[in-house]
Amino acid sequence: MDNGHLVWKEKGRKQVFTCPVFSIWETSSLAPEGESKAFTVLDAMDWAMVIPVLETEQGKAFVMVRQWRHGSQELSLEFPGGVLERGESPEEAAARELEEETAYAPGKIRKLGDMRPNPALMSNRIHFFLAESLERREAQHLDEDEYVDVEIVPVEEVFQNMGRPPYVHALMASALTLYLLGR
Amino acid sequence: MDNGHLVWKEKGRKQVFTCPVFSIWETSSLAPEGESKAFTVLDAMDWAMVIPVLETEQGKAFVMVRQWRHGSQELSLEFPGGVLERGESPEEAAARELEEETAYAPGKIRKLGDMRPNPALMSNRIHFFLAESLERREAQHLDEDEYVDVEIVPVEEVFQNMGRPPYVHALMASALTLYLLGR
Repeated sequence: MDNGHLVWKEKGRKQVFTCPVFSIWETSSLAPEGESKAFTVLDAMDWAMVIPVLETEQGKAFVMVRQWRHGSQELSLEFPGGVLERGESPEEAAARELEEETAYAPGKIRKLGDMRPNPALMSNRIHFFLAESLERREAQHLDEDEYVDVEIVPVEEVFQNMGRPPYVHALMASALTLYLLGR
Repeated sequence: MDNGHLVWKEKGRKQVFTCPVFSIWETSSLAPEGESKAFTVLDAMDWAMVIPVLETEQGKAFVMVRQWRHGSQELSLEFPGGVLERGESPEEAAARELEEETAYAPGKIRKLGDMRPNPALMSNRIHFFLAESLERREAQHLDEDEYVDVEIVPVEEVFQNMGRPPYVHALMASALTLYLLGR
């Protein structure tokens, strides 16, 4: 199917704001029917998120992190994850964030897929991984501004509560979709 | 459980960028252990997204929209949705976006839940709805810069392809999680 009647062409962009986490650009784009229009978009590094699955005597559980989120100004209980560091692969970032935030290292890790966290506004991707055969390390290695509690939550408890506080992180739900679909 | 050891307190914020879609703020926040730190956060209106389910002779299908996304600079095939207009409820926004983008009106609509699209960075919520008993209207009512194709996709086809182009919208996957969990 030819989708040319839907495709815009970016003719130029200028940076209008920047900070360590992202930059904002105003683009000038040509519509499928030829008129020009301005859009505001946000550039950021890619993110990685990992679903750490622990086999317990009571069945499967997720290793999750509870932390304060400065955008929403509330606590969130979610899968570990974070921003890719320069030169790092998505898988390396996922394994690093898992170990830093939870003190579990992945014996096995595999990619479930990647998506656009917010394709209308943001240029980056989020890469989702499944980590299994987890090995306990000595301690978390948190950044100085990170305060993170680790919690082992039965998978059924997460399924029942997804979409209610503190299970409010939409991108964690995106990861869960790939898990539920058996990827 | 007392989570006080994880809670930050915002002491003030100043606006550092604004555009019609969002504004950027630099906050000054006090860590659980008392030191002060700056964070950059993004304020935007809430969003609504709706899963429109159509009963066809071949089984259930989703009514989806294919459109260009200016952040990711690619086409995305996704559930209808958009920004709440001032004074509008999330349900009204979901029903309006569905009808404008697809020309289907919801006979029944109910909320599946709401989440934080990006709690680390953004203050807003995304509200998810299920629309059923769809009624066909005459035509789409698109904004002048909207170019949107409507596609009826069997639910199994979406399940099989979620996380691969053009099924790349992470917030659509968040909605799908609530659907898969039977909300």
